[in-house]
Amino acid sequence: MVGRAAYIAVDWGTTNRRAYAMSEAGEVLDTLQDDRGVLALTPGEYPDAIAQLRERFGAQAVVAAGMVGSTRGWREAAYIDAPATLQDLAEASLAVAPDVRIVPGVALRSGPRPDVMRGEEVQVLGAISSGAAPPTALFCQPGTHNKWIATVDGAITDFATVMTGELFALVRTHGILAGMLDGAVADGPAFREGLRRGSEARNLAAALFEVRAGVLLDRLAPADAAAYASGLMIGADVGTRTDLAERPVHLLGGGALSALYDVAITEAGGHAVPVPDGATTAGIHAIWQAISKVRA
Amino acid sequence: MVGRAAYIAVDWGTTNRRAYAMSEAGEVLDTLQDDRGVLALTPGEYPDAIAQLRERFGAQAVVAAGMVGSTRGWREAAYIDAPATLQDLAEASLAVAPDVRIVPGVALRSGPRPDVMRGEEVQVLGAISSGAAPPTALFCQPGTHNKWIATVDGAITDFATVMTGELFALVRTHGILAGMLDGAVADGPAFREGLRRGSEARNLAAALFEVRAGVLLDRLAPADAAAYASGLMIGADVGTRTDLAERPVHLLGGGALSALYDVAITEAGGHAVPVPDGATTAGIHAIWQAISKVRA
Repeated sequence: MVGRAAYIAVDWGTTNRRAYAMSEAGEVLDTLQDDRGVLALTPGEYPDAIAQLRERFGAQAVVAAGMVGSTRGWREAAYIDAPATLQDLAEASLAVAPDVRIVPGVALRSGPRPDVMRGEEVQVLGAISSGAAPPTALFCQPGTHNKWIATVDGAITDFATVMTGELFALVRTHGILAGMLDGAVADGPAFREGLRRGSEARNLAAALFEVRAGVLLDRLAPADAAAYASGLMIGADVGTRTDLAERPVHLLGGGALSALYDVAITEAGGHAVPVPDGATTAGIHAIWQAISKVRA
Repeated sequence: MVGRAAYIAVDWGTTNRRAYAMSEAGEVLDTLQDDRGVLALTPGEYPDAIAQLRERFGAQAVVAAGMVGSTRGWREAAYIDAPATLQDLAEASLAVAPDVRIVPGVALRSGPRPDVMRGEEVQVLGAISSGAAPPTALFCQPGTHNKWIATVDGAITDFATVMTGELFALVRTHGILAGMLDGAVADGPAFREGLRRGSEARNLAAALFEVRAGVLLDRLAPADAAAYASGLMIGADVGTRTDLAERPVHLLGGGALSALYDVAITEAGGHAVPVPDGATTAGIHAIWQAISKVRA
C-alpha cells in the first residue's frame, strides 16, 4: 500500500464486496474484492468483517454503500426520498457501529410510480462530483436490473428500474425458450435485428415468442437466437426512453453488457458517453468528506 | 357409452390428453382425460396408446390434434400457412398409421413476424363451425401462452402468441419477485390497479419492478402483490390489441384465467363473449367429415 489510508470505502453488494483503502484526498491506495456479499454474511458477522478490513487497510473509519443497508444486510438504512444529493446521503447515513456509516438508498415514494435504488446512487453522484458527468444528466446503469437515472443540479430526481437482465436470465434458464438461447450474445446482425423488433414491440411477452417461432420456421438461425433475444429485450428497455434525442446518456458499468447498451442507445438515435471507472469511490469520498465536516 | 362411436377424437397436448368417442353426427358419446400427454410418451409407444383407445371406445378411426404432431410428439405434421380453414387442415392431415390422422398446426411464415400454433386452430375453427362464433371474428385463448387469433370467412388469417402466463410463472418462482407473489390471484382492486398500470406500460420489464418497490415502500400490500402483478401482465397483454373497441372478443377456455381476461378486456373498453365448451370436438368433427368425404 502506498501512502496512509484515511478511511475505508466499501461497495457492499448482494453477492460481491469491493473495499478500498482511501487517502485523505480521495485516492484509492489499495483494493480488495471478494464474494463476502450480503448473502454470505449474517448480521452478527459484520463486526468481525469490519475488524478484518481495518487490520488489512490500517484505517479506522468505514463508509459502506449498497445492499449492506438493506433488510437483508447488516442493518436497514432507510431510503431517503428523491431529490437526493450526496449531502443528503451523508446526513442520512446510519451510524451502525463506532466509526462505521452505512449510506442509505434512494426512493421514489410519492410520485406516479414507486421505485428504489441502493448503491447505484453513490456511483451516479460520484460520476458528477468527480467531473466525469455534468450535474444535470441522464444515466444508464446496465445490470441484472438496468437503471435509468436522471439528475438535476447534482440531485437524483427520477429513475426507473427495468428487469431486463433478470428476465433474460429467466427465459434463458427456464420455460419454453430455454435450450434455444445457448448461443453467444454479442453485437452483430441478429442482435441489431432484435433491437429493431424490441424497440417497436408493444409488449415483451408478445415479441419473445417470436424467437421460438422464428427458429421453428427457419427464419432465425438457432445460433443467432440468444443474440436476437438479447437485442429484443435491450431494445424494448431502451425503447422506454423518449428523451434519447435530447441529451447524451452517461453509461455506467463498463463491460460487455454496457457495450451492448451503447449499441442500443446509438441505434435508437441517442448518444452514449461511457463514464470511466472510479465513480463509486468518488461518491463515497464526497460522502466521507461531508460526514467528517459535520463531525469536525 | 350411449350409441355407437364412429371415430375417436383426441386433443393430445404436452402434458394432458383428452379423448372422445364421437358419433357420426358429432355428438360426444364418451370421454377420457389423463396425463398421457406428449411428454409422457416416446414415439414408439403411440401405437399401443391408440390400440387402447380403440378398445376402450369401440371405434377404429382416430383424428388427433395438438402437440402430438410436433417434433416432440409422435411424428411431425408440418405447419400449414395462414390463411387456414378446417378444409385446409383436413387436406394436410398426416396419415401416421392405418386410420390415424394427425391435424397439422398453422404458421405465420412469411409476414412481418413469425408465429406458430398447434391445437388452438381446431378450437377456434370449431367454435365457428358449431355456430358459437361468427366466421369473421377475433378470439382470445388464455393459457401459459395466450393467443389472439383473427379469422376471416372461416379461415385463420392472423394471430399473436403472448407469453404472459409463462412469464408470470417464472417471476413468481424465480428471481427477485419470488416470495413476494405467493398471495391469491383474483379479480379485485389490486388486480384492476395492475390492469391500469399494465395497459399503459411501455415495457413489462420496467413495470414489474414496481411490484417490489411498491411493497418495500408500503404502497402495495404484500397480500395484494400477486393479484397486482397478474393484472399488470394481463393488462399489458390486452394492451397489445388496438382493435378492442371495434369488435367483440370471443373468449375460449373457460376457468379462472379466462375470467380474469374477461375483466381485462372489459376494462380496456372491449366486450368479451365466452365461447361454450365443445369447440375442440366440433373442430375435429368437421375435419373428420372432410377427411371421410375425400376418402369416400
